[in-house]
Amino acid sequence: MESITVGLGERSYPIYIGTNLEYGKLIKQALPKVKDLMVVTNDTVGPLYFEKVQKSLQEQGFNVHECVLKDGECYKTLDSWWQILTTLLEQQFGRAIVALGGGVVGDMAGFAASVYQRGIPFVQIPTTLLAMVDSSVGGKTAINHPLGKNMIGTFYQPKAVMADLNCLKTLPQKEISAGLGEVVKTGIIYDKEFFDFLNSDIEKTFDHDLATISHIVKRCCEIKALVVSQDEKEHGLRAILNFGHTFGHAIEAYLGFGTWLHGEAVGLGMVIASALAKERHMI
Amino acid sequence: MESITVGLGERSYPIYIGTNLEYGKLIKQALPKVKDLMVVTNDTVGPLYFEKVQKSLQEQGFNVHECVLKDGECYKTLDSWWQILTTLLEQQFGRAIVALGGGVVGDMAGFAASVYQRGIPFVQIPTTLLAMVDSSVGGKTAINHPLGKNMIGTFYQPKAVMADLNCLKTLPQKEISAGLGEVVKTGIIYDKEFFDFLNSDIEKTFDHDLATISHIVKRCCEIKALVVSQDEKEHGLRAILNFGHTFGHAIEAYLGFGTWLHGEAVGLGMVIASALAKERHMI
Repeated sequence: MESITVGLGERSYPIYIGTNLEYGKLIKQALPKVKDLMVVTNDTVGPLYFEKVQKSLQEQGFNVHECVLKDGECYKTLDSWWQILTTLLEQQFGRAIVALGGGVVGDMAGFAASVYQRGIPFVQIPTTLLAMVDSSVGGKTAINHPLGKNMIGTFYQPKAVMADLNCLKTLPQKEISAGLGEVVKTGIIYDKEFFDFLNSDIEKTFDHDLATISHIVKRCCEIKALVVSQDEKEHGLRAILNFGHTFGHAIEAYLGFGTWLHGEAVGLGMVIASALAKERHMI
Repeated sequence: MESITVGLGERSYPIYIGTNLEYGKLIKQALPKVKDLMVVTNDTVGPLYFEKVQKSLQEQGFNVHECVLKDGECYKTLDSWWQILTTLLEQQFGRAIVALGGGVVGDMAGFAASVYQRGIPFVQIPTTLLAMVDSSVGGKTAINHPLGKNMIGTFYQPKAVMADLNCLKTLPQKEISAGLGEVVKTGIIYDKEFFDFLNSDIEKTFDHDLATISHIVKRCCEIKALVVSQDEKEHGLRAILNFGHTFGHAIEAYLGFGTWLHGEAVGLGMVIASALAKERHMI
């Protein structure tokens, strides 16, 4: 297991990357005062991983409840977010949230945590490549509005991020591919050496080559942590992370949220932005 | 015009108290980079004050839009809050919010400001006694959930608070009375001299005696500013401001939100809490 720190003073937190992570112990460290947890997941990821996470948490003495959302970007809505808040209130179980899933689950669970009783702590267990390399780190939370993607949300940092690379074994190729959209972006905006590595070794990701995947997740988290710790609320530098996202969001909204995966749209978004820049002699 | 500062480092802001406040100039100072504003108000306060505020803002070069909510605690809901966010998106007019109204408008407009595009600045123009002495100061924003009052919200400070005492001239006696619930609370929790003053002079409030009202609003804001600047997110001291609110919220929820005004419920809540404490020999 390796660990990277997102340096934000009082709000600093660790990102753990490895295999067979001991969720219960790590969450106990991150939330020493918490007894009651609600795991927010979806109907694809829940059946695969909830029981394992629950067992690990119960061994550390946590009381564990579950809130299961529908899977997909098209459910990143007001209704799903309100479902999380209502479940917290119904179960009187509101001392912390564990987000178990991809970027959609993480963004919505984080947004719910940031506003439930004006803020309760949460941790991220990203289960997709995209969530591990990008969305689980940095504290951007959101839901979509019919008039725009991620228009409603907060900056709210998790207390820890736990990326278990074994989760990627159950991830469809299409989702790996989408995650690589954000990976390639990270290389382009910040690290030529990493970009060159991707150019030569990226195919190994599809074969679940652990050394390659581990290097990719770690390097992306390092770079994101560096950027976020310098500009948490996107007053300047952090905007580089949005490369490809202007056109990407337009593609997602135009086709209807969920038709293309976010990472796929970002991939094409980078191509369009670069072509436009070339045409205007800006690169 | 008098001015009090809520000291919160980078997030410090002024409270202006007086008559015939120059809203436009004060907001220009508070939001020097903003051109486009949306005034959030309700269908009782809007007809009385919107045009005046709009004129004052336009004289300073602001573009002004309006979002009118229904009046009352029973409309402090998910739907009203979403209406604010949708109006911001439809008008592409999202650079700042002015909350013009009582506590319900201020809490909802503040909550909308805190999450629209992950946070835009807002200012408060409280028009009720309760909002002037309590809810507009301190950065607590919220909406109600059917399962509990103020359960969903954020800590999000305004950039300025402008309390024009002339607004109280149009306020029904019942609303003055409710506001005095929070005023009496402030005396009890923090300032015996102020409490004694209230015991002797409180009736003058109902006659709109400006000297009395001015002293009351100023002293309540001073005390609230002192408490909030020491404990913004209610880890300890700030909880004293909740005196009477445990039973108060129960009364409001039991009777149905809006049946009793918040300040009325807090008034009875203090009586019940004190009676219980006496019975248990705690006071």
